Amino acid sequence: MHFPTVSSMSLVVTGTIGIDSIQTPSGQAEKILGGSGTYFAAAASFYGPVRLVAAVGGDFPPAHRSTLSHFAPIDLRGLETREGSKTFAWGGKYLANMNSRETLFTELGVLAEKPPEVPAAYSDSRVVFLANTHPAVQSSFLERFPQRALTVADTMDLWINIAKDDLTSLIKRIDGLVLNYDEAELFTGKANPVTAGKRLLDLGLRFVVIKKGEHGAILVHRDGLAALPAYPTENVVDPTGCGDTFAGGMMGALSQQIGWHRVGMTEMDTQDIGSYQAIRWSLVHGTVVASFNIEAFSLDRLKTLKPEELQVRYQKYLSMTRI
Amino acid sequence: MHFPTVSSMSLVVTGTIGIDSIQTPSGQAEKILGGSGTYFAAAASFYGPVRLVAAVGGDFPPAHRSTLSHFAPIDLRGLETREGSKTFAWGGKYLANMNSRETLFTELGVLAEKPPEVPAAYSDSRVVFLANTHPAVQSSFLERFPQRALTVADTMDLWINIAKDDLTSLIKRIDGLVLNYDEAELFTGKANPVTAGKRLLDLGLRFVVIKKGEHGAILVHRDGLAALPAYPTENVVDPTGCGDTFAGGMMGALSQQIGWHRVGMTEMDTQDIGSYQAIRWSLVHGTVVASFNIEAFSLDRLKTLKPEELQVRYQKYLSMTRI
Repeated sequence: MHFPTVSSMSLVVTGTIGIDSIQTPSGQAEKILGGSGTYFAAAASFYGPVRLVAAVGGDFPPAHRSTLSHFAPIDLRGLETREGSKTFAWGGKYLANMNSRETLFTELGVLAEKPPEVPAAYSDSRVVFLANTHPAVQSSFLERFPQRALTVADTMDLWINIAKDDLTSLIKRIDGLVLNYDEAELFTGKANPVTAGKRLLDLGLRFVVIKKGEHGAILVHRDGLAALPAYPTENVVDPTGCGDTFAGGMMGALSQQIGWHRVGMTEMDTQDIGSYQAIRWSLVHGTVVASFNIEAFSLDRLKTLKPEELQVRYQKYLSMTRI
Repeated sequence: MHFPTVSSMSLVVTGTIGIDSIQTPSGQAEKILGGSGTYFAAAASFYGPVRLVAAVGGDFPPAHRSTLSHFAPIDLRGLETREGSKTFAWGGKYLANMNSRETLFTELGVLAEKPPEVPAAYSDSRVVFLANTHPAVQSSFLERFPQRALTVADTMDLWINIAKDDLTSLIKRIDGLVLNYDEAELFTGKANPVTAGKRLLDLGLRFVVIKKGEHGAILVHRDGLAALPAYPTENVVDPTGCGDTFAGGMMGALSQQIGWHRVGMTEMDTQDIGSYQAIRWSLVHGTVVASFNIEAFSLDRLKTLKPEELQVRYQKYLSMTRI
């Protein structure tokens, strides 16, 4: 990246790697590389190294493995291949306005088996992102990262419906939660995002990021509120993975504290990367990376994305929202 | 206001005054003061003088007239009372999340008669807002303001459905259009707000403001795009009039060029209050005034709103969105 680093902390993501088949109003794609860990790691890799913990089956196509390797800062030592198993596969279809989608099929494959092993070399990770999976599995990863300084998890409606107690237990042990607007309402019964966010803080979180897709995101932090619009774009091809690239940009930027001196953040601030200021700032990076991801299927856009383009759009976003 | 004025232009609004009966999840209110002209003028009055053109019937309650008078900067010479007629009345009900509403009844009253007269004293108005009504009526007002420097109109789905040609003719004669997200899609057939906005620019507009309620607004201007989040708030009582107070804050701030020197805008910029910079900046004021309006029924919150409170929230909004 062209953003100078103030200091850095090692970043790890536990997530899924999937083979997606997707239909959108712009077209369709079969058996493309997807999964939360994939999108997160690719986005975070623009900021610095990112350690991936995930499992695939013996059917995982070499071409997809090579796509992951294309993102050099992704550490693939935690990518476990289970020869006798199948890779997670998902089929989905987006409706006309790209805001809602339906699942056509889900083949759990390795996701129905035990969670992937965390390599010993990852145990000194400081910044931890637990991408969406069963909250009990997310919790089980925590003890593998005893030096964690900031831990954030994603979740989804399924776990709120069938594993709310496990999710509540997880929440008590982490710093931040990232979830969709309707999921925040489902969890708390509160239709107002600020109220819903505060209820989640009451469970023990320091901050909640409520994702609203094309409408941006709302940060509810113990030390303040913020609202960020999405980057307005006409170039919408496939929204798959935008939530994960948003989180990847956010956590990648946080772990590297990219360009903090430019926004008036000091060396002292680097001691607390979960602060209101730090999180709010990191969400801009998440927003900008996600705005590229939506421009193509799979990692097709991130594969060709140049750090200069990211830098230009980051500045454009700032100038568009700055009065 | 505590925002210093650089220079000012006279502002006029043509709109409705209504008697509303409203049900929301927070409560209900009968026969309260409403209407687009009412909300617009009350919001704009925080910035400077605003001339109102509207008609009411002989049944218009003295208490409502006195509420309008409470906002001293509203010039009521253009408020026409028709003794033998009825005031426009509207009943509406908001659903649980406040994002959608249904109309329970509409009694057009004076709105079914000829449009109100524009006082000769208003003919030197420079900044013109045509609040939502039949686009042919909006067009007919234009010639009454021969010195207009900036003209903006609001519209609604009804006119897109039954009077699209008249609306298209109006669009060719004005500078900016303000409309809801779904209305922009209805007009253009484009689900993407940026694409929809550009199609509307192609008809001859200089800018389009697409309102998204709790999700903020998008500006599509010939000279650039912008996206603004709404002010995140838990205090949501009645969204009625938020679109009109948003427009009122926007146009009021534009007509007074409040605080432009603080945001780096120069004396020269005051020559072009329809510029990308000016409109983008004015939308912040609209956003902040609307965030107060939603806190109570009718003008109840704006009636007690102190300029200092507006100033504080304006600064808070800026600091929340500034990185």
